[in-house]
Amino acid sequence: MANAQIVTHGDVVTLPKPLQLDCGQQLEGVQIAYEAYGELSAARDNAVLIAHALTGDHHVASPHPITGKPGWWTRMVGPGKPIDTDRFHVICANVLGSCMGSTGPASPAPDGEPYGMRFPVITIRDMVRAQIGLLDLLGIERLHAVVGGSMGGMQALSLAANFPERTAASLVIAATAKHSAQNIAFHEVGRQAIMADPAWREGKYYQNDPNAKKGGPEKGLAVARMAAHITYLSEAGLTDKFGRRLQDRAEKTFGFDADFQVESYLRYQGISFSDRFDANSYLYITRAMDYFDLAEEHGGLLADAFASSQTRYFLVSFDTDWLYPTAESRAIVHALNAAGAPVSFVELPAPYGHDSFLLDVPELDTLVSGFLNQ
Amino acid sequence: MANAQIVTHGDVVTLPKPLQLDCGQQLEGVQIAYEAYGELSAARDNAVLIAHALTGDHHVASPHPITGKPGWWTRMVGPGKPIDTDRFHVICANVLGSCMGSTGPASPAPDGEPYGMRFPVITIRDMVRAQIGLLDLLGIERLHAVVGGSMGGMQALSLAANFPERTAASLVIAATAKHSAQNIAFHEVGRQAIMADPAWREGKYYQNDPNAKKGGPEKGLAVARMAAHITYLSEAGLTDKFGRRLQDRAEKTFGFDADFQVESYLRYQGISFSDRFDANSYLYITRAMDYFDLAEEHGGLLADAFASSQTRYFLVSFDTDWLYPTAESRAIVHALNAAGAPVSFVELPAPYGHDSFLLDVPELDTLVSGFLNQ
Repeated sequence: MANAQIVTHGDVVTLPKPLQLDCGQQLEGVQIAYEAYGELSAARDNAVLIAHALTGDHHVASPHPITGKPGWWTRMVGPGKPIDTDRFHVICANVLGSCMGSTGPASPAPDGEPYGMRFPVITIRDMVRAQIGLLDLLGIERLHAVVGGSMGGMQALSLAANFPERTAASLVIAATAKHSAQNIAFHEVGRQAIMADPAWREGKYYQNDPNAKKGGPEKGLAVARMAAHITYLSEAGLTDKFGRRLQDRAEKTFGFDADFQVESYLRYQGISFSDRFDANSYLYITRAMDYFDLAEEHGGLLADAFASSQTRYFLVSFDTDWLYPTAESRAIVHALNAAGAPVSFVELPAPYGHDSFLLDVPELDTLVSGFLNQ
Repeated sequence: MANAQIVTHGDVVTLPKPLQLDCGQQLEGVQIAYEAYGELSAARDNAVLIAHALTGDHHVASPHPITGKPGWWTRMVGPGKPIDTDRFHVICANVLGSCMGSTGPASPAPDGEPYGMRFPVITIRDMVRAQIGLLDLLGIERLHAVVGGSMGGMQALSLAANFPERTAASLVIAATAKHSAQNIAFHEVGRQAIMADPAWREGKYYQNDPNAKKGGPEKGLAVARMAAHITYLSEAGLTDKFGRRLQDRAEKTFGFDADFQVESYLRYQGISFSDRFDANSYLYITRAMDYFDLAEEHGGLLADAFASSQTRYFLVSFDTDWLYPTAESRAIVHALNAAGAPVSFVELPAPYGHDSFLLDVPELDTLVSGFLNQ
């Protein structure tokens, strides 16, 4: 199965209508980069939208065109896989504000220069509006399901809550209905690390090349990534993976090199991230996540976000996820119950922390497949 | 009682003998800044040594001479307080490697220039050796007790394990016998933030003024402090204190100002810290903490660190401390049990996370007082 040909369409489309944003501004000529796998049925009723996480992209099940790395969810998406491309037409779009082909701060503003920090501050709901714009263009009125983990789960929630007629089901993995003080705090550390880097230059580091990711605040972005990366892993997972083991040496050096494997690993994570990601996009997307509070958007009561919803919901949390702990999913389930919406919920045991949604958790595969094939 | 006069001696002394360090080097002319409270008994047997945490100082119960702020543990130390200066002669010394008066990277090397990164990498045991050097100078052969929280607790452990004849008791609060992979990871983020700041200049930022804390990598140090500060507080504590409340505004600004109170708080923590602390000291002291592994120092088995110990131990952990969780204290208790050492242990409920040892936890006062007066 793994070697079967996956039908793939990749494209960058321009939304015909201006995108009305939560901040009050409009964005014209929004471009959305997306990929699609599997055939759309004649009734156009088998589409599954996958929403990616903070630093993800639309290459969900095909190799990244630049890095050559496999898609980020190949274990989940493909022929015969839990999100089965033999059955479903799977779509994944790069989110608004990102840097992988969709419009973001590195894109040219109407004056032809990169937006930089002139890009409007966007929200998770704005990202979802862009996804809906793409579905309109593709002629998909109603999704079979929207699926996402982490920030993708926030979008899956927001889409089902704000556009309930556009999806029959919403699968929300390792997510939350609002960012906590601790979540905001970690993101603020990352933003301050970027903005403290003199190479950030108030976001004007593109030097006439909107695609340039080098030459910007690489060091600050690397530090931001390092701090965030710790939150994606469980304490026990870090101990299992690295413990206090030394990196390619028998003794501590009594210096500031990466003596410990965990230091070496984190440094690598930071450096490789700043090679592939735009620092301004990191600022904007973390801001969107921090602003996310689905209850607040609906008058303060989370249940009201799901009023008269016909959408089927499924929530999955991981017992070692301390970024968005199970209590956050439970709060959503309680609100859905209060709204009378159909919902299932499972907390899965997994040793890896928040990143479990991307990793080898066979029970997750079974649950995803079961939910989509109901 | 709070207004009673506390007898205070403050001094900076020079150790007469070179300090032999774990790295193999020797440090000559080590200066130790300390304060003392209460009278030393004629038998010289009522001394209590308090060891401070990563960013602490020796002003444990008297106002800081520069900031004017009260001592960092006035709630615990003073006449009639749990560490009763009417009964005990209380000593607190600035740790080796710090920047509050004891020898550290900002101090002049033998060539007259600040050490900077030429300062040797030190360990917790080296800090303890400096404390023992101070006790030798003061003519105190045996402490009534050594007491410390966080890194102070590591020193209390290390002193009792490595110099068991020098203390009758050891009170270890919110500490660990070794830094975990996650502990190291957070410190490494901080070090990389400092080293990424161009103003760090490989540690050569003192500009001929060994006491200058301004003009160095202030932004990097502020980011380091922000990341660390999150680990000192519990998730629930952050939510109680800040939640998603906005800072002096009714609406989100759709910008990158500190919209949320938690952002404003963290930024303040970072900036005020870089006003008072030396970045190179932060590098060296975090390295000492990361290197700390009391079992490794004693052949790999923690119980061997306490072999034939006559010292009474008391360990306290806090249920919301995720930096050094209760399991870390329990591992020490098990090793002490295996070594046949007398030990008591309490996990206290407290909402504040790791910082609980500094905050208002009345049960802690009772326990400390009870242990010292046994």
